[in-house]
Amino acid sequence: MEYLSQFEELKARKLNLDLTRGKPASDQLNLSTAIDAIEINDYSFDQLDLRNYGLLKGLSECRELGSKILGCEKEYIWAGGNSSLTLMSQYLSYLCIQGIGDGPWSSEERVSILCPVPGYDRHFVLTENLGLNMIPVPLNGKGPDLEAIRSNLESDDSIRGIWCVPKHSNPTGETYSKDTIEGLIDIFSKTRNKSRIFWDNAYAVHDFEESEPLADIFSIAKDKGEEDLVIGFGSTSKITYAGAGIGFIALSELNQALYLPYYSSLIIGPDKMNQLRHVKFFQKNDLEQHMRKHADLIRPKFELVQKWLKGQSYGSWTKPTGGYFVLLKTNPGLAKRIISLSSELGLKITPAGSTHPYGLDPQDEYIRLAPTACSIEELDAAMEVLVCCMGLAHQENLKV
Amino acid sequence: MEYLSQFEELKARKLNLDLTRGKPASDQLNLSTAIDAIEINDYSFDQLDLRNYGLLKGLSECRELGSKILGCEKEYIWAGGNSSLTLMSQYLSYLCIQGIGDGPWSSEERVSILCPVPGYDRHFVLTENLGLNMIPVPLNGKGPDLEAIRSNLESDDSIRGIWCVPKHSNPTGETYSKDTIEGLIDIFSKTRNKSRIFWDNAYAVHDFEESEPLADIFSIAKDKGEEDLVIGFGSTSKITYAGAGIGFIALSELNQALYLPYYSSLIIGPDKMNQLRHVKFFQKNDLEQHMRKHADLIRPKFELVQKWLKGQSYGSWTKPTGGYFVLLKTNPGLAKRIISLSSELGLKITPAGSTHPYGLDPQDEYIRLAPTACSIEELDAAMEVLVCCMGLAHQENLKV
Repeated sequence: MEYLSQFEELKARKLNLDLTRGKPASDQLNLSTAIDAIEINDYSFDQLDLRNYGLLKGLSECRELGSKILGCEKEYIWAGGNSSLTLMSQYLSYLCIQGIGDGPWSSEERVSILCPVPGYDRHFVLTENLGLNMIPVPLNGKGPDLEAIRSNLESDDSIRGIWCVPKHSNPTGETYSKDTIEGLIDIFSKTRNKSRIFWDNAYAVHDFEESEPLADIFSIAKDKGEEDLVIGFGSTSKITYAGAGIGFIALSELNQALYLPYYSSLIIGPDKMNQLRHVKFFQKNDLEQHMRKHADLIRPKFELVQKWLKGQSYGSWTKPTGGYFVLLKTNPGLAKRIISLSSELGLKITPAGSTHPYGLDPQDEYIRLAPTACSIEELDAAMEVLVCCMGLAHQENLKV
Repeated sequence: MEYLSQFEELKARKLNLDLTRGKPASDQLNLSTAIDAIEINDYSFDQLDLRNYGLLKGLSECRELGSKILGCEKEYIWAGGNSSLTLMSQYLSYLCIQGIGDGPWSSEERVSILCPVPGYDRHFVLTENLGLNMIPVPLNGKGPDLEAIRSNLESDDSIRGIWCVPKHSNPTGETYSKDTIEGLIDIFSKTRNKSRIFWDNAYAVHDFEESEPLADIFSIAKDKGEEDLVIGFGSTSKITYAGAGIGFIALSELNQALYLPYYSSLIIGPDKMNQLRHVKFFQKNDLEQHMRKHADLIRPKFELVQKWLKGQSYGSWTKPTGGYFVLLKTNPGLAKRIISLSSELGLKITPAGSTHPYGLDPQDEYIRLAPTACSIEELDAAMEVLVCCMGLAHQENLKV
């Protein structure tokens, strides 16, 4: 009855809390406000007026910044607008509408994308909206299970790619090992003419504790002659401004040549003024030092989540060293119930199932926690609510 | 022989000139440099941090700005990133991949879009890249020929829409009359559940001489109960910065509801910081007055083009009162030759045929001139070259 009385007590507090938002808090955004005060006196770069149309692949210095963030050679990088998700959607719509040599994906009866789970809901929603089929494959702590990928590819020739968040994966927090990356390339090399590895390196420089490094997939792929398999993505969304940063796409020389005619029909050129502001900001602010400031603001929040979870008796959970999420694994069948109980107490949690394609978490056991957007005080209250609801749900479950 | 000797003389000057670029010159961009110096002290709007994700439809005040530019009610407008072309491509990819009730366009054997000609090459390239068929229909000085549209729609049920640049049309310079707009709505109302009018109002406030006003298509359509037929577009690209402005899309309430789930899978939110800069800029600078400054810079260039064309003996041409282009109609079969001769003299002209779908100008007679991007001196030299090449080509033609 302990949890029930705590539940009633918490209910009386009429809380309004939110753990759904995988985004920076305002104190993190404040680290970059100097970007708005950057003086621009010269608009000409390479005989071009940066305020005008053009420079489809982005400002050279900004592509350099992208290469530093994504950890690959500059030649691969194009710098775009404020959203890497838009760059993903444009590239995937190109595959659907034109394809890469074997005709438009949308003209085929079934095209499937492998989705390591638990994974990133926006990848899944985009893929579903494009009319593509999704097949979940398990993650094993060092990236997706290679045997599962291999056997899927052998038995299903509709598979055309895989979504990967290779560092501080959303939401499991794991970083793909070099062996996993090599295995991925080797496996997909058999379908090189029709498939792509979508490498969303969203948390490339987002360690808040010492973390495993991520190997550069492009140099690994290049050594194997398979650069064309990889389409990389990244952004400064969680480095400068989430809503007004720079998105990047990384492609091999051949993929650039294939994609450019399509891409150039979608946009006359990116916002080079914002690219210039970013270049100038990072001339004055060292990227690594800037990310350490983010880490210092984020770390206490993740520590607080760990403290609350250690202090209770149920489930298991991740202990990430970077990124934006903690993933909680409850006893099977309890995730929805815990989220619903939390909602009764005024705590919003990302809907159960959102970590899986089509919203289907088969065991109903995963809960994604996003501790960065709220204040320490709000987070403390939110964790109290969550822990109470976990206890209550597990207790209810024992009784049944 | 007069033209030939002039041709040789001009050739010796080794000129490097360009009339292809329908974009503002740097002196026009200078009109908006205050936008870079705008101080932003408060990032919160409606309980939201503008630097963060969110506000998919754009900042309310910026949507208001869009409604002022496009001349329709604010409720229709979403404010996006720096490119209306991107907004067009996203909406059209939505039609291809999901459709509007009758299934994805891309799953149909043939989907056709009517293209008033001469028209805007980027519309044609985008449409072709999306795998859609294009059918040219003539313009008559007050918009597209309604009879041609009607008979096409009656005989070809693959038609799903029409591209329109309703004011200072690119490149004919004409503005659609109210009768044309009403006729368009009436004709397309018969196919309302499967077709759309793509209303690219790119030059909505871009008069440089007194111009016919453009009627608001949304209010006309609303009166007829046909708002859902119209998808509007526009931007500040030729108002503030061509590469760092704000794009707008305008949709009925129903179309917004239908499109939102797809659109929200493409982007988490637009760059609201740039939207805020634009809002603040136009709080200090009256839009109409600002556009008069553009007009004062542009007008002498168009006058110079007219002066050169009047002073020679061949072809006919438009006398626009706004927009960015003069369209030259040569004797049939001479456009390519004139452009090729100009190229020999170091003058780049937009390739013949680019004013038509698939690059096919059936009479090889249209040449699009874009006089804004170069200086008066360059334009003067460019027109001297062009007039010489026109003379030479017509002379050659007489001899054959």
